[in-house]
Amino acid sequence: MQKIITGFFLSFLFLLQATAQDTVDIQIMNLIREQGLKNSKIELFAHHLTDGSGPRLTNSPGYNRALQWLISISKEFNFSNPRKEAWGEFGKGWSNEYSALNMRTPYFEDIIAYPVPWTLGTTKPAMAEVALIDALDSASIDKLGANIKGKIVMVKPANRPLNFPFQPLAKRYGDSSLDHLPPTYMFARSEIEAFVPYLKAEYYTKLYLAKKGAVALLNSNRGSRDGTVFVQGATSYAKGYAATLPEMTMSIETAMRIARLIQNKQKVSLELNVNNRFYNDDLTGYNFVAEIPGTDPVLKNEVVMLGGHLDSWTGGTGATDNAAGCIVMMEAMRILNALPVKPKRTIRIALWGGEEQGLYGSFGYVKKHFGNPADMQLKPEQQKISAYYNLDNGTGKIRGIYAQGNEAVVPIFRNWLAPFTDLGANGGVTLSSTGSTDHVSFDAVGIPGFQFIQDPMEYETRTHHSNMDTYEHLSIPDLQQAAVIVAAFVYNTAMRTELMPRKPLPKAERFVFDFDFPL
Amino acid sequence: MQKIITGFFLSFLFLLQATAQDTVDIQIMNLIREQGLKNSKIELFAHHLTDGSGPRLTNSPGYNRALQWLISISKEFNFSNPRKEAWGEFGKGWSNEYSALNMRTPYFEDIIAYPVPWTLGTTKPAMAEVALIDALDSASIDKLGANIKGKIVMVKPANRPLNFPFQPLAKRYGDSSLDHLPPTYMFARSEIEAFVPYLKAEYYTKLYLAKKGAVALLNSNRGSRDGTVFVQGATSYAKGYAATLPEMTMSIETAMRIARLIQNKQKVSLELNVNNRFYNDDLTGYNFVAEIPGTDPVLKNEVVMLGGHLDSWTGGTGATDNAAGCIVMMEAMRILNALPVKPKRTIRIALWGGEEQGLYGSFGYVKKHFGNPADMQLKPEQQKISAYYNLDNGTGKIRGIYAQGNEAVVPIFRNWLAPFTDLGANGGVTLSSTGSTDHVSFDAVGIPGFQFIQDPMEYETRTHHSNMDTYEHLSIPDLQQAAVIVAAFVYNTAMRTELMPRKPLPKAERFVFDFDFPL
Repeated sequence: MQKIITGFFLSFLFLLQATAQDTVDIQIMNLIREQGLKNSKIELFAHHLTDGSGPRLTNSPGYNRALQWLISISKEFNFSNPRKEAWGEFGKGWSNEYSALNMRTPYFEDIIAYPVPWTLGTTKPAMAEVALIDALDSASIDKLGANIKGKIVMVKPANRPLNFPFQPLAKRYGDSSLDHLPPTYMFARSEIEAFVPYLKAEYYTKLYLAKKGAVALLNSNRGSRDGTVFVQGATSYAKGYAATLPEMTMSIETAMRIARLIQNKQKVSLELNVNNRFYNDDLTGYNFVAEIPGTDPVLKNEVVMLGGHLDSWTGGTGATDNAAGCIVMMEAMRILNALPVKPKRTIRIALWGGEEQGLYGSFGYVKKHFGNPADMQLKPEQQKISAYYNLDNGTGKIRGIYAQGNEAVVPIFRNWLAPFTDLGANGGVTLSSTGSTDHVSFDAVGIPGFQFIQDPMEYETRTHHSNMDTYEHLSIPDLQQAAVIVAAFVYNTAMRTELMPRKPLPKAERFVFDFDFPL
Repeated sequence: MQKIITGFFLSFLFLLQATAQDTVDIQIMNLIREQGLKNSKIELFAHHLTDGSGPRLTNSPGYNRALQWLISISKEFNFSNPRKEAWGEFGKGWSNEYSALNMRTPYFEDIIAYPVPWTLGTTKPAMAEVALIDALDSASIDKLGANIKGKIVMVKPANRPLNFPFQPLAKRYGDSSLDHLPPTYMFARSEIEAFVPYLKAEYYTKLYLAKKGAVALLNSNRGSRDGTVFVQGATSYAKGYAATLPEMTMSIETAMRIARLIQNKQKVSLELNVNNRFYNDDLTGYNFVAEIPGTDPVLKNEVVMLGGHLDSWTGGTGATDNAAGCIVMMEAMRILNALPVKPKRTIRIALWGGEEQGLYGSFGYVKKHFGNPADMQLKPEQQKISAYYNLDNGTGKIRGIYAQGNEAVVPIFRNWLAPFTDLGANGGVTLSSTGSTDHVSFDAVGIPGFQFIQDPMEYETRTHHSNMDTYEHLSIPDLQQAAVIVAAFVYNTAMRTELMPRKPLPKAERFVFDFDFPL
């Protein structure tokens, strides 16, 4: 019916397709809104995925706690077939079981510092003097000669003042349109390839540092300030990689103080005690998957997917990166399952592992179910999935969506956002792409994969990979709003006559994050 | 000469007095500016008073390190008679020699936490479960019954979300006049008196908590966020006070997480190991004092004073509260002593102890040299001091000055600021008073005591009594500017014909912070 009408107006093809087929069912939209705002379980999901689990580094005890909890809460909420699903080999699990970094000379300070994931612990508590190196390279190490033996080595922080926070650390997008938001977080494979030699050099330099007898390595890095410390790990999860020497990322204020003391001929001694545990018994990586079965006899074989990554770094409890996405997606599932609606297509949530190391969980899932972009030999399931919706830009409410270069979805998404403009989803649809998270894995094999536009809040300034990525840095009302909008998008996708329109199939090309290990 | 002229224009008395007597010597002002901006030693003073000394709690090793360093650097810079001068009895010294607070169940976390000054340490490392109490009072303790024995007790943090930092955490005053800046940090004695019963109740509650067998007390407080923790101490420095049980102030994010875990029936165990050391051998309090002798045969017996408090709390290294003031005052002394100027009056720097506990060092000095406001029996020296200039509002540059209700100084100060408006000292002079720091001790006995208006920067949001009160939160250029202006004010005060005009003597009244201990 819709097709006959639209055939008369070819120049308005996309717009009218959308208007005819994608007029939203306001009654259902209102039910979703009411269920999401009045009966919210956001706090329940948030507490258990952050406070309850702890850091959720892939294959760590925290990750596994979260997985188990997701399966059990999914059963409580009657999701179908909640399970962990293997996506391939990830590598070693790791967790920090004890850590302390204290200044002992010239006076005591309990230093704000965190072990770098997948580095070694100390075999026993170590008390050692600090030696400064100019940069993390073998020339800088050699400059210290035999003096490096038995030392805690610190890379000299840049001697420049911190900026005072005259600008707000948190922000929301204003009310003007986001239709022309430029691309964000996009990397070309060539850019990542250019970075690989640095990663490799860094890895071998750390092995060299250990060989020269250094006790440990300290670093302090980008954006650290005020007790907020950004911590992320290296490549040693992979089977071929030996773990490097004990390494901690510390408060920039204390790092700069230590550097000044040493430059003023004051000996600085630190006490270091780190117990890191590696888990080698199961190198397989797992995603969490659950469903709401479709009810249409034919369309139930087609699938709408929603997800975000479950894994995190270790400084905090991965609240905004990306418990937030998992919380919203679980709540969207709960909302839809709680309502007397009968989605025609099957709805499937997937919460991914290994995202922080290179979108592994989603890419592994895509390879297993849909095909490998390297050869573009696609599997039958690739034809049965309508769209994948992702959320991974922190705790801010949904303001719009990236159409990821798919012109045909723009008018559809505009219609779908319209009922929620009063909730702040008034930014619109940008044709731009966004990258560096899991919808990219779907996009790579020609499946419509989308990420929502969220208010930035303090994601880049405070929480993204930091020790402050904790529950208190979530905005519960923002997450409630996001769950309502995701539930609406998923429902609409599950109900429309056609699968979501697709872009032309991309040319066969190795996936942007697909590299061989060891490097 | 000036007096004859001004006698004709009684209605413009103050203004013309200022104009005639207080026209500044621009050549000297430029020498001061050049010495301060081109040959600055701000970084030297800053490094040694923060990094080098560590926390400078009154009578602690850090305070004594700072005192000793000040004496030795004063000798290097040829200040006269640098010395420590006793001001009376303070009480016990205290320092934290080791501290660790770790979550062990349900997973490990090295918690950002600091021992509360003058509380006890643990006798041995303690592993204990956390028990929540609603408030720090005996009723809340009794509600837990015998269950409190062996527990680490935490006051339940208010269950309200943290505010996102949509406003800048640091600010400067704009370019409009500050002449009508309202009073700041002013407390009446009656307000402080009303607060004493709370302090007293809190003290006895802590003794009660220990008696009930609690292992330690944890709190989290105002403004804590992002790894910044505000830590200050209690009353137990005073001779009559027994130290209370081990107590730590911790990250609000972790405190709230622990509270949620417990409310969700998850047992939380913490490991606590604190070694605090008390120093009882010398209960005397000391200030640092040094001089530049006056050169006028008569006026050299009169004194201009400048100062700030040297003591700090313990979370950081007291950089903005108030190494900043000490750095600026030492640099102002250095500038004046380095120039070929011959100040008529004697210039005396005093850096105070015990300010944080109630302006003790400055009040003790004032009582000893000038008289006690309680009876207003003044000593001869009270007639010989022209003014006292104080700096204690953080690291921001000087924008103007509080005239502290002294109308006669307003036009004088306007003239003195005028040569420095291009450096940002363009805010002017407010007649308003500011309180809570050491010029108040002078004001109480009728001596003109002033505090400068400084750009607020991040003083209230980040550094004031926090673990982030460290060197990196100083602005070196701002402190350079402040030292130039202080040097100019001190020089002008030392050179003018008359002592600075005084307000009428206040009525005899017990000093605002003068209370008997024990309470």
